[in-house]
Formats: sequence, C-alpha cells, structure tokens
Amino acid sequence: MNSSDRRKIIIDCDPGHDDAIAILLAAASPKVELIGITTVAGNAEVDKTTINALKVCEIAGLHEVPVAKGAGQPLVRKRETAPDIHGDSGMDGPMLPEPTKTIVEEHAVDFIIRELLQSDGDITLVPTGPLTNIAMALRKEPAIAPKIREIVLMGGGTFGNWTPAAEFNIYVDAEAAKVVFESGVPIAMFGLDLTHQALATPEVQKRIREIGNPVSDFVEELLQFFMQTYKEVFGFDGAPIHDACCVAYCIDPSVFTCRKLHVDIETKGEFTYGMTVVDTLGTTGKEPNAHVALELDIDKFWNLMINALTFYTEKK
Amino acid sequence: MNSSDRRKIIIDCDPGHDDAIAILLAAASPKVELIGITTVAGNAEVDKTTINALKVCEIAGLHEVPVAKGAGQPLVRKRETAPDIHGDSGMDGPMLPEPTKTIVEEHAVDFIIRELLQSDGDITLVPTGPLTNIAMALRKEPAIAPKIREIVLMGGGTFGNWTPAAEFNIYVDAEAAKVVFESGVPIAMFGLDLTHQALATPEVQKRIREIGNPVSDFVEELLQFFMQTYKEVFGFDGAPIHDACCVAYCIDPSVFTCRKLHVDIETKGEFTYGMTVVDTLGTTGKEPNAHVALELDIDKFWNLMINALTFYTEKK
Amino acid sequence: MNSSDRRKIIIDCDPGHDDAIAILLAAASPKVELIGITTVAGNAEVDKTTINALKVCEIAGLHEVPVAKGAGQPLVRKRETAPDIHGDSGMDGPMLPEPTKTIVEEHAVDFIIRELLQSDGDITLVPTGPLTNIAMALRKEPAIAPKIREIVLMGGGTFGNWTPAAEFNIYVDAEAAKVVFESGVPIAMFGLDLTHQALATPEVQKRIREIGNPVSDFVEELLQFFMQTYKEVFGFDGAPIHDACCVAYCIDPSVFTCRKLHVDIETKGEFTYGMTVVDTLGTTGKEPNAHVALELDIDKFWNLMINALTFYTEKK
Amino acid sequence: MNSSDRRKIIIDCDPGHDDAIAILLAAASPKVELIGITTVAGNAEVDKTTINALKVCEIAGLHEVPVAKGAGQPLVRKRETAPDIHGDSGMDGPMLPEPTKTIVEEHAVDFIIRELLQSDGDITLVPTGPLTNIAMALRKEPAIAPKIREIVLMGGGTFGNWTPAAEFNIYVDAEAAKVVFESGVPIAMFGLDLTHQALATPEVQKRIREIGNPVSDFVEELLQFFMQTYKEVFGFDGAPIHDACCVAYCIDPSVFTCRKLHVDIETKGEFTYGMTVVDTLGTTGKEPNAHVALELDIDKFWNLMINALTFYTEKK
Repeated sequence: MNSSDRRKIIIDCDPGHDDAIAILLAAASPKVELIGITTVAGNAEVDKTTINALKVCEIAGLHEVPVAKGAGQPLVRKRETAPDIHGDSGMDGPMLPEPTKTIVEEHAVDFIIRELLQSDGDITLVPTGPLTNIAMALRKEPAIAPKIREIVLMGGGTFGNWTPAAEFNIYVDAEAAKVVFESGVPIAMFGLDLTHQALATPEVQKRIREIGNPVSDFVEELLQFFMQTYKEVFGFDGAPIHDACCVAYCIDPSVFTCRKLHVDIETKGEFTYGMTVVDTLGTTGKEPNAHVALELDIDKFWNLMINALTFYTEKK
Repeated sequence: MNSSDRRKIIIDCDPGHDDAIAILLAAASPKVELIGITTVAGNAEVDKTTINALKVCEIAGLHEVPVAKGAGQPLVRKRETAPDIHGDSGMDGPMLPEPTKTIVEEHAVDFIIRELLQSDGDITLVPTGPLTNIAMALRKEPAIAPKIREIVLMGGGTFGNWTPAAEFNIYVDAEAAKVVFESGVPIAMFGLDLTHQALATPEVQKRIREIGNPVSDFVEELLQFFMQTYKEVFGFDGAPIHDACCVAYCIDPSVFTCRKLHVDIETKGEFTYGMTVVDTLGTTGKEPNAHVALELDIDKFWNLMINALTFYTEKK
Repeated sequence: MNSSDRRKIIIDCDPGHDDAIAILLAAASPKVELIGITTVAGNAEVDKTTINALKVCEIAGLHEVPVAKGAGQPLVRKRETAPDIHGDSGMDGPMLPEPTKTIVEEHAVDFIIRELLQSDGDITLVPTGPLTNIAMALRKEPAIAPKIREIVLMGGGTFGNWTPAAEFNIYVDAEAAKVVFESGVPIAMFGLDLTHQALATPEVQKRIREIGNPVSDFVEELLQFFMQTYKEVFGFDGAPIHDACCVAYCIDPSVFTCRKLHVDIETKGEFTYGMTVVDTLGTTGKEPNAHVALELDIDKFWNLMINALTFYTEKK
Repeated sequence: MNSSDRRKIIIDCDPGHDDAIAILLAAASPKVELIGITTVAGNAEVDKTTINALKVCEIAGLHEVPVAKGAGQPLVRKRETAPDIHGDSGMDGPMLPEPTKTIVEEHAVDFIIRELLQSDGDITLVPTGPLTNIAMALRKEPAIAPKIREIVLMGGGTFGNWTPAAEFNIYVDAEAAKVVFESGVPIAMFGLDLTHQALATPEVQKRIREIGNPVSDFVEELLQFFMQTYKEVFGFDGAPIHDACCVAYCIDPSVFTCRKLHVDIETKGEFTYGMTVVDTLGTTGKEPNAHVALELDIDKFWNLMINALTFYTEKK
C-alpha cells in the first residue's frame, strides 16, 4: 500500500488500557499512518499518561512516532481521574520496561496546530481522552478547523458511566467537548452505545492469548486488569475496549453503523453535567453535527483486532 | 370480588388520548376502584383536559366518580401544551357528546388531600400528566405523604420525546417532578423505555375494531388520530398508549418488569431540563427512590386491554 | 378615620424579630386595617413562626385578627431556617405569655385566596418571609392575581445577606419568588438596599426604651437579641428591622423613594441562586415589574415607628 | 530611577478607548516598565483590537514594545463584542495614522508564558479585556502561576454593565475568569464599583484639552466619542476610563482603597452568567482570593493622569 493511501491520524490520548490497545491497533495497520501521539490528563495525571504512551510506543516499536505532552488540567474545571478503573498509574496491570524514547519539546497543542497547518487537510484527529488539547488548539489557532479531515472521538453516548448521564471523557472536560462539538469540524462520535458492544469477553481474551507474541501478551495482561475493574465497578462480564473503536473506524468504517445526528454538550446541569445530548428523534430541529456510531459488527471488529495483534508476530 | 380487595386509585390526568384509554381501562377492571379523577394542564389547558375527562366519564358510564379540576399552570414555569400530538382540544379525533356531569367544587389538590387524610393509607395516586397537583398537595399538606400507598406515574425515561433528554410530562413541570421524586413516597415510574413498548400497532387496532362496542369504537377513533400524529412527528408505526400502562400495573403488576433505581430530576440544565436521570449503573451510590418499569409483557398487556374493552360490550 | 379609608393588608410572615415589629406597627396604625396574618416557614419552622405570630397578637391585643398557618416547606427545595439570626424559637429574646387565641382552620393559602376573591380588589399582601404561600395561592387560584392591589414584600436587593448574592427570604424559596415576580401583580420590593438603612441603632433603642409601655418594652427586648446576632454575624452596629419597612410603606409611602425596575429571580446559578437581579441600568430592555425601594427617609421612618409604639401607651 | 525599580507589566488588552488610555499612561510613567502588549477579542474582534494596539503604540512612541496577537474567541462560548460602546473599529473617534510597526510572530499566550518563565517572578499581568489569553496561558503552562507577581485586572464588580449582574469583560469570557480567579495567583480586581468613580467629566476633559500635545489631543478625541456613547447607552455624564485604573494602581497603589475578599465567578446562572460574586459580608466563609478595589482618591487619580499626559509634551 502506498503511503499516500494511508489515513493520517494523530491519537490524542490518556493511556489508559483501551488507549494503549488503540495505539497498538494503529501501529499494526497498513491502512492508517500514525503521525503523532499527544497526551492529556484523563484516566490519570498527564505525567502518567505520557509515560504510559511512551511505554506503549516501546512495546509497539513506534520509535519514530513523536509523542507530545499536552494539557494537565481541563479547560475550565478541576481535574478528575479514574484510578478505580485504570489503577493508580493509569495503566495498571502489565509490567513494562522503561521507555528509551522521550517526548518532543513541542506542547501537544502546538504539535497539533503545526501538523494541521502544514497538512493538505488530510489529517484525522483521534481523541480517546478528554478533549482539552483539541479544544485548546481550536481556540489558539482557529485556522486549523477547516484543515481537520475529521475528529474521530471516544466519548459520550445516550447514557453515562461516570454519572448516570455522563461518560468519563466528556464529563472530565465538558467545556472542551462543547468547543469541539460546536466547531463545525466533521465529528464521528464513539460513545458508550457503541463501545459497550466492543466487549472483551473471556472468549475474546482466549483468542488473544493464543496469538502468543509479546504485544498480544501485553494486551492480554491489560485486559485482565481492565476486566477485573469493570466487573467490580459495573458488574460487567468483560471490558469494553472503548478507544480502539475509533482507530478501527479509521481502518475500516464498514465495521460500524452510524447516524448523522445533532449532539449538544450539557455544561450547566445539576445532575447532567458532561452529558452528550443526542437528538435521536429529531425534536430539536437542529442540523446534525456528528456521525454517532450506534451499531458494531462484532465479528468483523474482533477479527480486525486479532489480525492486528497477529501482525506483531510476523513483525518480530 | 369484594370491594375491599380492589385497589383504590385516583387518576390525575390531562386527557389526552392515552389518558382517556387509561380511564376506560380503570373503569372496566374489577381489580381497581376508581375513587376520583383529577385534572391538570398538560396535553392541553386545564379547562380542555377537564371537559375531556368529563366526556370520557360519559362514554365509560362513570356517573358516580367525582371529577375535580386542578392546576392550570405548572408549579413554577410557564405552561407548555402539546397540540401537535393531541390536537387543539387535547383529545382530537372522536366526536363526543356533551357530558351530563359536572366537576365537583373542590379543587383537585384539596380533593386529593382530603381523600388521603380520610383513608387507611390504601389509596394509590396514578398521575398520567404533569405532576403539578401531586406536588402542590404534598407541599400544602405534608401529612399526606405517609398516607399514599404508591404513586404510579407516567413520565420520564432514559431518553426524551419532547426534547432529546426529557419526556413531556416531566418537562412541563420538572419542579413538581422534583418534589414528587424527593418525597419519600413509593414511586413506580412508567417512562418511555416502557411505554414505547406499549405500541398500538395496526394489528392491535384491528383487534380493537373487532370488539365493536361504543367504547371500543371510541378507542379506535382515538388511536386513529394518535397514530397519525405519532407517524408525522416521530415517524412511529403505531402509537404508544403511555398512560394506560400505569393503570395496567395497578390491575396486574406481573405485566411489567421493574428495577428499583435512584432517579434525580434535572431542573437546571441548558439542554436537559426535565430529564429523569436514572442511575442504571449505580454510579451515584444513592438509595433507590423509584421502581422503574423497563420491560413489558406485550401479549399479556394487550390481552388485558382487549378484555377490558370487551367488558363494555357485556356492560351494555 | 373611616374604616374604608384604611389600607387593607394581610401580613404573610415568619416571625422573626422584625416580623413581630411589622405586626405591631400595623396593629397600631389607623392608616392600615390588618385583616389577617398568615404564617410560613422561614426564620424558623412553620409551627414555631405560627406560635410566635399568636404571641405577638396577644401582646398587641389583636384578638380579632385571624391567624392562618401556611406552608411548612418551600415550593420545590428543602427547608432552610436562620437560627443564627433569630435563635432557635425564631423569636428568641423576650419572655412571652402563652397565646389565648388559636389559628383558624383554613390553610393560609385558602385564607388568602378566599379573602381576595371576596374583596373589591383592595387588599394588599405584605409578605415578610419566603414567598411560598403567595406563590401557591397564585398557582392554586390564578383568578386572584387581578384582585391583589399590591404585593409589598421584604426580600432581595442588589446584594445578599444569606449568600453574597442572595437575601434570605428569596433564597429560601427562589422558585416561589419567581412565580410572584412573573405574576404581573404590582410589586413593591423592600430589599436590603433599603432595609439596611432602617437600622435600629443604640440611639433608636434608647428612644424606644423611653416609651415604657409593655409593647415598647417587648420591642426593646427583641432588638437587644437581634442587635446582638447582627453584631456577631455581620459586624453591624445595629439591627435592620427589615419587615417593618413594608408596613411603614403601607402607612406612608412618602417615607421611601422607589424606582420602577425590572427584577428577575435567579434559580439556576451556582453561586447566585435566589438573587433578585435588579436591572438598574436598563440593560435588559425588559419592562419594569417592581417598585424597588432604594432610599429611606430615616427620620420620618423612626418617628413613624416611635409614634406607633407610643400608641400602645394610650391604648393601655 | 533605576530600571530594576520599575514595575514590569504586560498589558493584555482589547483597545478600546480606555485600553488606549491605559497604554498611554503606562508608556508615560517612570514607575512601570511596559515589557509587552498582548491583544484579545473583546470590545471588538481581535484583528481590530490588534491594529488599534499598534496605532496606540505609534502615537505613544512605543516603538520597542512587542505587540503579540492573542485569542480571537472566548475559551468556551461564542464571541460577543461591544460596538455600541466603542464603535465598529473598537476605538472609533480619533483619526489615526497607520502603524509602522507590526506584531511579533509569537502568539500572545506563548509570549506571556515565555516572558514569565524567563522572569524572576517580577512580572505583573494587567488584563484590561476578557481573560481568555491569561486563562489559556495558565492552562497551557501551569508552571507560570507561581511566576506571576500579580494579576491586576479590569473586570466585574458588585453590579453589571452588560447585564444587570455582569460586567462586559467577565461576561464575554466567564469561563476564563473562573480559571483566573481559581488559579491562586494574587489578583487585584478593578471592577465597576471602582471604575465608575474614575469618571472623565467635562471638567476633566477641559484639563486634558489644555495640555495641548498630540497624545493629550488624541485622548481628548477618544473621550469625546466615549462620553457620547456612555451618555446614550447608560445616561452617564462622563465616561469611566475603566482600564486606566489598573495601570494607575501599578504606578501608585495608594490611589485606591482595596479589601481582600473572596470572589466566585458565576458560569451557570440564567440571569447572572459572568457575575463576579463578591463576598463582601463574609457569608461564604471562603478564603479571600482577590484585592477588590472599592474606593478611588479621585483628585490623586486625575493628577496622576494629567501628569502622565503632560509627559508627552516634554517628550516631544
């Protein structure tokens, strides 16, 4: 495959178990070109998510992909992290070697702005954490908006997991989400309606275990920890690997069924702060501003995942 | 069946096509004793919903059941009605005779308070419109709270029909809903998750048509109008007869599967005013305050409905 | 003075030190006719404010004036009282005889509605506590609105005393205040801008002490307690006898300078719940809905007060 | 005076008539060292406020002071400007030569961050427009917070001028203001309580006219326009030169009386969005986070202004 046929993406993330899997999926696929990784506070503080990102690069052999550190705190509100779900490090579970690579000097916001301004409008942003960096980039340099091919984000849904109404990523920085959803940039939203279908079950885990390369082993260990916290906190019999869905979409959109809908971000509510208010029935009369992913072709999705992890066997 | 075995209910309503069906269902069932009907502004202004209630009594032969007129405006906010769904009269469609009966002198709020204070704690309130009367009664006479057996209400859900987040009844008077849900009284909530399963389809309509008594004919005409507006506004292939679910529950709770959950009422949100925030995953850690009806035994439900309407043939 | 020349008022109150003084002022003046006292939860629970009202009637010799008990809880939110300011009884300080009179059977809301409907539109409501009863009456019987001559209320201001933005009476039931201010009824608002000018200083206290009748002695004891809490809580060198201003206005409006302004009630704010948002500069372009009292003729006010208390010497 | 004795300031502004006067005052004073001017959208779009800043530099002979362009849109919400007050250009009135100088390449946010990080903690930020740049700098590089000597800002007050509750600068970007007031950085707040005392009256205007140098003539023309719009919009007999107060404070704090108080920023309210909620009575119990300027020594202030403008005569 010619490099120019690959979809260029920047993953803006807060690894995070499922963020790690998203990066590994991107690194393995010939369909996407990972031109950078930027980090943000979310599942853990930004210093932790940044070191985690570097460790994942080490595992994945992503020695050339620049990692830029971003915002340590939401746009307006106080920071909130998720140690109950991801452990204290933000990516508890697997033992990992210290990374040999370091971050670039540029701030994530400036990295995103520069890459976009230099581009032909062919870069897709893939935010899998709170949207702080993306919002800050849009506000610092509004000229990037028309240069973004699409923002393929993990967040929101018609129900919540952090509060009854709000999903974690959007809740943590709802003001940033508001900026992004009102930006006019094409958005594909992978919320809980979708990602709860991407459930790593014991069967899935078994398939991954059977691959037996270092990356698949690492993923297996991530899943062990992640499935345990999902069982304890939510009573789930499996862990939704939310963030990987965004990268899967960049690789093969046909895995997902989406609807073009209007989404508002609630920033004022007493019980609904951080909710993505999805106008499913069209009662608002507002123009759609997002492709909302609603249905997952489960078989296709896991085949794509397993193929990607198998790639690391060959690579080795 | 002995009168004392029948479940005593007061229907507090804003007829309304589905409110009318709820009343007819109650009137036909030996399992419930309808001790009063109170009216409220909702689907239409309270003068209209009151005349509609009287007309339904006429049709149903409910000559002895007192009808008391209630609040013409929500507790705090401005009135909003639903002519798009129920027509200008609030119950457009069938031609109806003028009622021979008139309302009682007592205000709905005082009727509810007096009946409850005089009772043995065996009265169930069945609000099928905005909760203005119930909230006002609870505030005017707090001593009624422990006298209410249960509040079986139509409203809310995990999604909306009036806005993306809010169902009409709760939206119209969210402050009243807040009072009710924070009252400590046992609540059974029949929201859209449930009532959208109670869809009067063309097949159901056919079964009703075949009954062939004046009441079933009236219901059939109601459904014709209601199904038409639901098609136009929501693109539904049938009309959910929301309010009848509450009465069906009083007749036979086994028709429904409920979960005990915590529900908060959003009154501050920019896009979520009037939302019933249902804590399905238990993220708030708050004690449940409502039985939330989630699943309908569709066959059982329609058999119950058809039996009730058939009763009017025999009665005649 | 002919009875028909006297301004008919109903005092809706939560005594409360300054409420008590308001009642005593009304009872002493030939310019007003006190046709009823209604009570509400506010400075203390409604059972306490009601017994306080009865005790004040006893002291004032108001044996014929009906006292009706009203709402024990705000329209929507939870009750909040002010024991720091008024003591546990709501009117700590003076020792008082048990009242010989009892309350009427009618609820305050129904008393207000009935009196207004029977009137020629010449009754002024004087709420000196939270506006719960007034709002509930307006909602239960909207036909009273055009029958109210004026609502002369103590509450609000361009700054707060319970929070930085909100005065106690409005804060305690901002939803009720919203109903009242949006009702279209003529309103005179005596907020903190005005009532903090009605400061019972040590000099004022001395003048009252010198009157030397049982009522002035009682007022003196009220002031001793009230001045003490105002010193402790707010660092004031005197106590503002807020509520008496409303009655003084009914007796002699020339004591006050008012401006016709638009006032909105904030019910959503994070730090501003219960604020009366007064449009002093006319930036909203909205029609005025209240006479906002801004300046007090201090000499005239205290002369009026002293005269009223002296009346009780003659009476005796 | 030794350079090291001069107070280093960066003026972050949206000229704006009074912003222009603030810059001219800073440029004329030996007590402050203006190390940079940054611009922001506010009174007008950022392209306009930037060209205005350059023109003021031209007039003032500030050829060496860097001007960096900043945010064109508030942190979260949509842009709002004030053409009614400042004209379409943001600084209507005087005819001005095209500037010979251009902006630096660095974004205002990066300029502020770099200057602060390189400093010895002796730089004062003087924002006289919306706080977008300052908030964005604090979020992009949290390490600057302890490096800021003080933020001396024009904004807020215990009443509003853009809405009844909110002053323009804070209203335009209340989320940014929230970030700044919660940052822990020392803040001096020059709100409307203070700046409405800094009223350029006809007498003041006469004094300025009599100076008779090009800069004073320019200020005179600014005031003519500004006084006219203040008369039309607010009915004022003079124009408050809000922003100049901040610079005057840096030159001579003794011109002002301040109190240390807690200030919250309202971002949720229906009628109070953008209000600076000043806890004057200490009801919140929260620690003070701002020096709130409350009283102006009017004579001292205008003498300071006149002296500064006279400086330009000598300079020439």
